[in-house]
Amino acid sequence: MREGSEKRAVVLLSGGLDSATVLAEAVATGRQVTALSFRYGQRHEHELQAAARVAAAFGVTDHVIATIDLGIFGGSALTDAGLAVPHGRSEADMGEGIPITYVPARNTIFLSFALALAEVRGAEEIHLGINAVDYSGYPDCRPEYLAAFQAMAALATRQGVEGAPVRLVAPLVLLSKADIVRRGVSLGVDYALTHSCYDPAPDGGACGDCDACVLRRRGFAEAGVDDPTRYAAR
Amino acid sequence: MREGSEKRAVVLLSGGLDSATVLAEAVATGRQVTALSFRYGQRHEHELQAAARVAAAFGVTDHVIATIDLGIFGGSALTDAGLAVPHGRSEADMGEGIPITYVPARNTIFLSFALALAEVRGAEEIHLGINAVDYSGYPDCRPEYLAAFQAMAALATRQGVEGAPVRLVAPLVLLSKADIVRRGVSLGVDYALTHSCYDPAPDGGACGDCDACVLRRRGFAEAGVDDPTRYAAR
Repeated sequence: MREGSEKRAVVLLSGGLDSATVLAEAVATGRQVTALSFRYGQRHEHELQAAARVAAAFGVTDHVIATIDLGIFGGSALTDAGLAVPHGRSEADMGEGIPITYVPARNTIFLSFALALAEVRGAEEIHLGINAVDYSGYPDCRPEYLAAFQAMAALATRQGVEGAPVRLVAPLVLLSKADIVRRGVSLGVDYALTHSCYDPAPDGGACGDCDACVLRRRGFAEAGVDDPTRYAAR
Repeated sequence: MREGSEKRAVVLLSGGLDSATVLAEAVATGRQVTALSFRYGQRHEHELQAAARVAAAFGVTDHVIATIDLGIFGGSALTDAGLAVPHGRSEADMGEGIPITYVPARNTIFLSFALALAEVRGAEEIHLGINAVDYSGYPDCRPEYLAAFQAMAALATRQGVEGAPVRLVAPLVLLSKADIVRRGVSLGVDYALTHSCYDPAPDGGACGDCDACVLRRRGFAEAGVDDPTRYAAR
């Protein structure tokens, strides 16, 4: 690949299954990638460790970790240790309303930082592993939300005003978890490096029955791919 | 005023002249106010001290300070000590292009946090002292940007989805600095509490000739109001 001829992209990298797949696709399609992760008051650091492993596995050396305090808002089981992560919910239960693991305006905050970083790096694209199928309860995972963010972004920055507004790329938005797993396997993603569990054991072992684990397990099962997740002993 | 009957509003409070005026107006019109300020890697803390003084002066006890690291993006003289704040520029100079004090996507990031806080507090409004007249060089200070952010916000949160999208209130957007000063004086704002200078002396004294000082001084002069700013000795 010729230096400087490829597109530059900021990739939001949580360390989970979805964002690892997005990163793999961005690299495979020749993007020059800046990965962006957040230390946002998560109850655990396993996500960030997974993000670093995934970036390293794909040779991405420009990995920015932004520290922001979403814990000040409370209200989510992902940042508030006083709220319990739900376990053992059926997928029907998950489809009902907005879950307690919802962090207010999280994707908007993450995308705003990505927008700033895209401007600084001269990136034309922001890639993210947002998914409307498995996370229908999160308002900020829907295609219409993404379109509105992109329209706003075009008016928000020097980059937008001077003629090259950033484009949001959400390759997974309408895929099932099984589709995502199949795509990732074809791209060489080692999902053992990734972390999805909302409520891991101290050593990072996945609980197996929070919403994130349930969706992830089903994804591997439906894709017919061995699940490489390390589950906590019970 | 009856408890619970007034509107709730998140007010972005930088500690400068504009946001102090907006806070005064929100309080005067009966809003129940949550003030939101940011520790964002500013080169100095005088802004935050001013924000606390202003909140206290208006009896606002719910004052959230969010710590976020915009310094990781570099590129702005407001957060990067390696870049000089310009001094002595004419207003004609300021009208040319986007200034070095521009922080990438700053208003988008600030508004994203305000959106999260509005949802947590059940606030229907976000008030901000954005101004398109004196800051025409900042893309994210224009009315069309605000409209696009509001449209995005309506799709972004539980609050928006469940029927009461947040409204952006930008009462200063088309006012001159002199208009703003007049309005603030009529609302009882003590501008001696506020801080606008981009490049203050260690004791907080204003430099008098950065872009922010130039616009502020002119505002007082044109409004025919004594300038209460404490300027650094030279």
